Amino acid sequence: MIDYRFEPGPVHLVRLARGADLYDGLTDYARRHDIRAASLTFLGAVRRASLRYYDQEERRYVDFAIDEHLEVVAGVGNISLLDGAPFLHAHAAFADADGRAFGGHLNSGTEVFALEATIWQLSGKAPVRAPDDCTGLTLWGGTLSGP
Amino acid sequence: MIDYRFEPGPVHLVRLARGADLYDGLTDYARRHDIRAASLTFLGAVRRASLRYYDQEERRYVDFAIDEHLEVVAGVGNISLLDGAPFLHAHAAFADADGRAFGGHLNSGTEVFALEATIWQLSGKAPVRAPDDCTGLTLWGGTLSGP
Amino acid sequence: MIDYRFEPGPVHLVRLARGADLYDGLTDYARRHDIRAASLTFLGAVRRASLRYYDQEERRYVDFAIDEHLEVVAGVGNISLLDGAPFLHAHAAFADADGRAFGGHLNSGTEVFALEATIWQLSGKAPVRAPDDCTGLTLWGGTLSGP
Repeated sequence: MIDYRFEPGPVHLVRLARGADLYDGLTDYARRHDIRAASLTFLGAVRRASLRYYDQEERRYVDFAIDEHLEVVAGVGNISLLDGAPFLHAHAAFADADGRAFGGHLNSGTEVFALEATIWQLSGKAPVRAPDDCTGLTLWGGTLSGP
Repeated sequence: MIDYRFEPGPVHLVRLARGADLYDGLTDYARRHDIRAASLTFLGAVRRASLRYYDQEERRYVDFAIDEHLEVVAGVGNISLLDGAPFLHAHAAFADADGRAFGGHLNSGTEVFALEATIWQLSGKAPVRAPDDCTGLTLWGGTLSGP
Repeated sequence: MIDYRFEPGPVHLVRLARGADLYDGLTDYARRHDIRAASLTFLGAVRRASLRYYDQEERRYVDFAIDEHLEVVAGVGNISLLDGAPFLHAHAAFADADGRAFGGHLNSGTEVFALEATIWQLSGKAPVRAPDDCTGLTLWGGTLSGP
C-alpha cells in the first residue's frame, strides 16, 4: 500500500461541449490549470465510447468502442503526474437506451454529447506514476512488493 | 467548455428513509438547506428504479422503469440552479440479484429501500442552467458554440 | 431522513497493491488512520469480485462472486462507526473483457490487481450505525419512522 495526504483545494465544475473528446478535454483542462493532484467524478452522455480493458495475463490493454449513444452513468478518476505532466486516469460506467450498463477504462476517442465533471483539486505533493513490475501498469510509487 | 471554480464548503452525509423518493428526497434536502452548488455521490438499495435515457436524435427523454429490487452501485450528480432554484442532476448504476448492471438518468419515482448520499457543498457563484441549442438540454451557461 | 454536517478534512489518495483484499485493505487503512467519517470513490482492476445483494423481502444478504478479471469502473462508499470502530460501506460497478457491467455491495474476498481510492476525511461527529427495524440493515441513526 502507498498513500498520500492532501489538504482540500479548489473544486472545479467543468462542462465539456458537444463534440469534445471526453478524455482529452478533461486532460487539457487539468494541464491548462496546472492541476497536478485531483480526484474527479463525471456524468453526462456520449455519442460513442472508446474504452480499454487491461488483460492481466497478457499485460496489455485491449481497446474497444461502443458505437452507440450512451448515458455516462458514473465516471470516477484521478489526476497525478506521469512524465512530469498532469495525467488523467478515469473509468466509467455507461448505459444504453434499454438501460443496460457497460464500462471500462476511459480512452481518447469518446465523443461528448453533454458532460459535467467535478474536479477536486488537492493541495500537497502530487503522486508520481512509474512502472510497476507486478502489473505492467504505471502506478503511484512504481513497483510495490507485497500488499 | 465552460468552468466554475469554488472553495470547498460543508459536506453533508444524508440518509433517506425507506419509502422516500430518491430524486425528490435529495432535491428537497438541497432546497431546504439552500445548497445552490454541490457535487454528490450516493449508494444504497431501491425497490424500483425510475430512469431516463436521452434520445440525442429526437431530442427528448425516454422514460423507463426497472420494477425490481436493486442495489444502487454508483450514483453521481451535481446541484446547480435552474429557474432560480437548486436543481439536482444525477445518474446512477444499479445491479440486480444476479449482479447485472443497469443505469441511466435518475428520475422521480425511484423508491428508496436504504440510501446514503454525500453532498459536497461548494462556496462560490452557482452555475445556472439554461437551454442549449446544440443538445436540447438545459446546461450550465446555455448554448456553447464549439467544443 | 437523517443528516450530518461536516467541515472538509484531509484527503487521502491510497493505492492498494496487487494481491490486497479490496474491502479489508480500505477498512484497515481507515482504522490505522482513525478515519471515523469519510466519503470515498475508487477505480482499478481486480482478479475476482466478491459481492453481496440484499434480499429486501428475506432481509438477508446473498453473497456471490465473479471469478473473472474485471475493471473496477466506479466504486462509491463511506466510512462511519459500527460498534465503535470505523466501518466501510462500499458498492461498486465492474466490467469484463466485453465491457459488460456488473455490480453490488462490496464484500471481503475481492482480490486487487490495481486499485486507487480517494478518501475524503470529514471533520465532525461521526455517524453511528445501529439496527434499523424497517430494513434489517445497520444504518445511520438506527430505526427511522417514515421517510
